[in-house]
Amino acid sequence: MSTFQAKDQNFESKIRERLSGQHFMHLMGFDITTILAGEVTGEMKLEQKHLQQYGFVHGGVTATILDITMGFAAYSLMPLGKGVVTANISVDYLHPGDGDRIIAVGSVEKPGGKMVFTSGKVYIEKNGVRKLIASARAVMAVIESKIDS
Amino acid sequence: MSTFQAKDQNFESKIRERLSGQHFMHLMGFDITTILAGEVTGEMKLEQKHLQQYGFVHGGVTATILDITMGFAAYSLMPLGKGVVTANISVDYLHPGDGDRIIAVGSVEKPGGKMVFTSGKVYIEKNGVRKLIASARAVMAVIESKIDS
Amino acid sequence: MSTFQAKDQNFESKIRERLSGQHFMHLMGFDITTILAGEVTGEMKLEQKHLQQYGFVHGGVTATILDITMGFAAYSLMPLGKGVVTANISVDYLHPGDGDRIIAVGSVEKPGGKMVFTSGKVYIEKNGVRKLIASARAVMAVIESKIDS
Amino acid sequence: MSTFQAKDQNFESKIRERLSGQHFMHLMGFDITTILAGEVTGEMKLEQKHLQQYGFVHGGVTATILDITMGFAAYSLMPLGKGVVTANISVDYLHPGDGDRIIAVGSVEKPGGKMVFTSGKVYIEKNGVRKLIASARAVMAVIESKIDS
Repeated sequence: MSTFQAKDQNFESKIRERLSGQHFMHLMGFDITTILAGEVTGEMKLEQKHLQQYGFVHGGVTATILDITMGFAAYSLMPLGKGVVTANISVDYLHPGDGDRIIAVGSVEKPGGKMVFTSGKVYIEKNGVRKLIASARAVMAVIESKIDS
Repeated sequence: MSTFQAKDQNFESKIRERLSGQHFMHLMGFDITTILAGEVTGEMKLEQKHLQQYGFVHGGVTATILDITMGFAAYSLMPLGKGVVTANISVDYLHPGDGDRIIAVGSVEKPGGKMVFTSGKVYIEKNGVRKLIASARAVMAVIESKIDS
Repeated sequence: MSTFQAKDQNFESKIRERLSGQHFMHLMGFDITTILAGEVTGEMKLEQKHLQQYGFVHGGVTATILDITMGFAAYSLMPLGKGVVTANISVDYLHPGDGDRIIAVGSVEKPGGKMVFTSGKVYIEKNGVRKLIASARAVMAVIESKIDS
Repeated sequence: MSTFQAKDQNFESKIRERLSGQHFMHLMGFDITTILAGEVTGEMKLEQKHLQQYGFVHGGVTATILDITMGFAAYSLMPLGKGVVTANISVDYLHPGDGDRIIAVGSVEKPGGKMVFTSGKVYIEKNGVRKLIASARAVMAVIESKIDS
């Protein structure tokens, strides 16, 4: 649950607009479901295209949906004219991902004018049971951005 | 340049076989170009589907091709019956990725029977000039694996 | 709050014994205050010897007390004959550390027979107010250990 | 070997001055031996005070000397009035540290006005043989700093 104040009250519609340019997210089929100030959640149905050779969800899928949700969580707190890019992401893979749906939650831990510290979790749902499969942290760098004005 | 001895001399053909199950890699369009004992390289042409809202290569693309090349670099040193899965990956994004082709090189830094330490680099080629855009490290966990027997 | 079951019921006294060999911890003056199955807490009074050139707590101090508490949190769940060593630690420094006391809490996120995933937090107390200054994650490798038998 | 240009030609003497405030470094007994633009090396004799319960160098010692050398490598490229603090450090422990001397080398990978990306290596010398025991990466945040003017 987010406890942060957005500086731009239109943060939700601004994020919705940015999603149209998230081409790689669309290639995967991932959707953003909830946008709060400092916390963004998304999910998708797992399909064969998301897997690696052992039949589990690809580590790149997990890293990508973490990057997206943590990035937009940081972006939700930006004032007009500022965007964010990932400086560092670190992902721990706790369990192999095997299931029907995959959910990612990105949260701001500490906002800032130059960098934003975020954390993220990825869950798999299988037969109605949700399981944590990855935990992550990312440092997001704040940038000047014309398209975010 | 790799300085490691493979334990399974068929490592290259074994990796080529595993690639057929790398569904997410195929969705992206990434190809493995060079397989050495302890070092694996791949590349792809950058297209709109790989980008994010600022027009740069998506951080998830970069993380994915690092995960693939570092994972197969570790796998190239495994004996028969052993595979690897990523335990932790950490990626530093040095520059925004803007160009024609993207290249990833994954290298083993220290092999082991339980875990393998690897490092990786991602380069962008634009108008014939190659530039380093990301540096990464990953800890790969060794697993028992029937399909690798 | 820990939700794990210890495999060796003497885990607390076993950890107390191991502390005598933690020479670098004693050089710093850090004390372990609470030992639960899967969660270990420690603290110390901040003194000049713990600082860097800007007058803040040294990043190495923060990393060390995270390594100690996360390592012993993992160790608390080990059966007889097994120990742990750090494979990877990643620390995010959220705020400069300036205060009277420093507290570290290490927690197991996911136990395992080959590796244990842990997380950690460091707090500073200043004039009775506690503030989170660092968040960390570590992968601990399980080792065979004679002294832990 | 460094390939960067310092913005303040007095970077070496400025770093030598800053070392007096590195209280925790002095507690450990670590010395900076070589200061280049973008690369800083240091070392110390290993003593019992640096060890953990298995008789190996403490992970906190390794993390601390990486933090110091990577931090000063970044600082060596700062103009007057700017300093650096660690935002994130990630350390991979490749081998247990057992030997006579320990050496850390911190290098800038990519300088910048807001953040500096660095990498580091730690070596142990035992009976005249040098061995790599840890590899690290750190993101350093650039700060305004009165004492660096």
